Amino acid sequence: MAIRASTSADGVDGWRADARAAVADEIRRFVGARSRDHLGPAPETRLLADVLGRFVEGGKYVRSAFALAGWACVSAPTPAAVRAAGSLELLHCFALLQDDVMDQSPRRRGSPTAHVVFAEWHRGQGLAGSPSRFGESAAVLAGDLFLVWAEQMLRESGVGEAALARVLPRYDRMRSDLAVGQLRDLVNDARRQPTLHDVRAVARAKSGDYTVRGPLELGAELAGASPALLGALGQYGAAVGEAFQLRDDLLGLFGTPDRTGKPVGEDLLARKATAVMVLARERADTAQRRELARLDRLPTLDRSDVDDYLALVSATGAREHAERLVEQRLRDGMTALSNVVLSDEARRRLVHLADLCGNRNE
Amino acid sequence: MAIRASTSADGVDGWRADARAAVADEIRRFVGARSRDHLGPAPETRLLADVLGRFVEGGKYVRSAFALAGWACVSAPTPAAVRAAGSLELLHCFALLQDDVMDQSPRRRGSPTAHVVFAEWHRGQGLAGSPSRFGESAAVLAGDLFLVWAEQMLRESGVGEAALARVLPRYDRMRSDLAVGQLRDLVNDARRQPTLHDVRAVARAKSGDYTVRGPLELGAELAGASPALLGALGQYGAAVGEAFQLRDDLLGLFGTPDRTGKPVGEDLLARKATAVMVLARERADTAQRRELARLDRLPTLDRSDVDDYLALVSATGAREHAERLVEQRLRDGMTALSNVVLSDEARRRLVHLADLCGNRNE
Repeated sequence: MAIRASTSADGVDGWRADARAAVADEIRRFVGARSRDHLGPAPETRLLADVLGRFVEGGKYVRSAFALAGWACVSAPTPAAVRAAGSLELLHCFALLQDDVMDQSPRRRGSPTAHVVFAEWHRGQGLAGSPSRFGESAAVLAGDLFLVWAEQMLRESGVGEAALARVLPRYDRMRSDLAVGQLRDLVNDARRQPTLHDVRAVARAKSGDYTVRGPLELGAELAGASPALLGALGQYGAAVGEAFQLRDDLLGLFGTPDRTGKPVGEDLLARKATAVMVLARERADTAQRRELARLDRLPTLDRSDVDDYLALVSATGAREHAERLVEQRLRDGMTALSNVVLSDEARRRLVHLADLCGNRNE
Repeated sequence: MAIRASTSADGVDGWRADARAAVADEIRRFVGARSRDHLGPAPETRLLADVLGRFVEGGKYVRSAFALAGWACVSAPTPAAVRAAGSLELLHCFALLQDDVMDQSPRRRGSPTAHVVFAEWHRGQGLAGSPSRFGESAAVLAGDLFLVWAEQMLRESGVGEAALARVLPRYDRMRSDLAVGQLRDLVNDARRQPTLHDVRAVARAKSGDYTVRGPLELGAELAGASPALLGALGQYGAAVGEAFQLRDDLLGLFGTPDRTGKPVGEDLLARKATAVMVLARERADTAQRRELARLDRLPTLDRSDVDDYLALVSATGAREHAERLVEQRLRDGMTALSNVVLSDEARRRLVHLADLCGNRNE
């Protein structure tokens, strides 16, 4: 499937739908071929192929959209560009599989998480040992395959040796940052009082840079962007990436499970140190602080505790504060774009994607 | 440090010591630079750097030795060859970190495993949540870094674009097989009665091909080996790899903890489905079978249960049977070499390495 050269027919949404379909197509083909070649006919590897295949069908495809938008700032994306962009979705699948194990998340995108699926299989087969440990190990191994295949898909995308050589250092850095960011995130979650500075630094390393800025720069650099363009996209990407992460934090607390595919208050249950929670702690008055401390100490949270928690976070003004930060960062992103020469279409796409990041409800 | 072109001065052992020192040197440099560039000054990332740095110091360096021996079948190994060989040790570090988490192994190479070190740190810092879960997550993330860095070290080794393009498909295949083999291994461990065929197939996928055959072929192919040479090395590698794995299984049961760095009977405690255990089950008479079933059902094993288990495995003849299989596979390896033109030195090295694999005590 080709991505329309022009977005004039039905606007940016049409471009994004085309891009998503084209990327999904390439990923399906790539993962299907790898599964056929590498996984074999044993029952557990057939299950693995099934889990991998279903996993890549879901998701928002944000990273590939930014990679293609970055490429499209320079020239029209080629089929090789679509494959290179798709490789970032596989990298993201790796990160999600591991995160879900580490956070012990029961659901992802409205379905049981991979480790839960593998654990159920273990139970159904009547195997010895702990089903949940088996499930977690199998999900980590599925993640390994995505990490390896992501890089293989990028390398075999057909973007050309010179383009690859330009971006691989950035790609390696992004992958290292992802692991390091996740470690720092776990430590922040486990600290009773991380600072906003700590939490924002980690959010940048772990999610922001690898969700928006990294893919955008990678796409632009593959297409041969000038240093000036890369600089502007980098600034835009850092700002929009932070807006994305703040929105993620807000949705993790106040999102609608139907839309997010995650249980209400999941981040509270997991005691995640998000920017919104840190803001709430920083803004709380004495009484609110006492009440937060009480909720923090509860070993488990029932539905009414979650409601109390959320009402308290709102009462501190942290929710509105975070909303203002989102708007501010989106404006920063727009400012960064104003300093560089871009086609109207490329600019429209970036404005649209920034809006999607900051103002989505899923 | 250079690897001597000739082994005549102090024989194969000298060559191997030189190779190991040269590889260790390159790995130390590479991991040190990545740690400085990517890990940052937070306490948890300094601990991470420390764990990674200490991890690469240990081990037998079998994979890099085979990679260099493969290269040396074609020409004298260059510094780029040493770096490419070193990258296989980083890949192995990745696999060990993950395996230790999945097997919940307390010790590796005579020291606490990485997940135990991270858990201790978590406890020492008084962080919230489960220290052991944190430790396992951190160790998996350390493994991710090794997986990414391994590939980066291979790509940046300086072996040249054409050589890299030749071996990357093999490398990708090896990495996929590693994850798939580990999954199948977990399933075999959890099956009450896996067959020898299952266990040998997995041992081949998981360990054999990636310990001996894979590195050997990769080194030879990087150096530009002919198809005939690659074919002979592949046969040798498959046979010697299986001997290596059988010896591993024997050491996992009957090894001396001082030499192996692992507790007595660790594989029994973990209920690992090794070839030796499967042989014991297949060879057991009715009374032995009953006694094996009794031990299999014990929820935990104390020292005297382990002694009973080991005595029973020996009494079935499985230990001797496995020893004969080791000898047979080593002979098969030698036969494979007899069909190809090699320098005396290259042949001597391969004979020596095969002997180390099959007859080591650590």
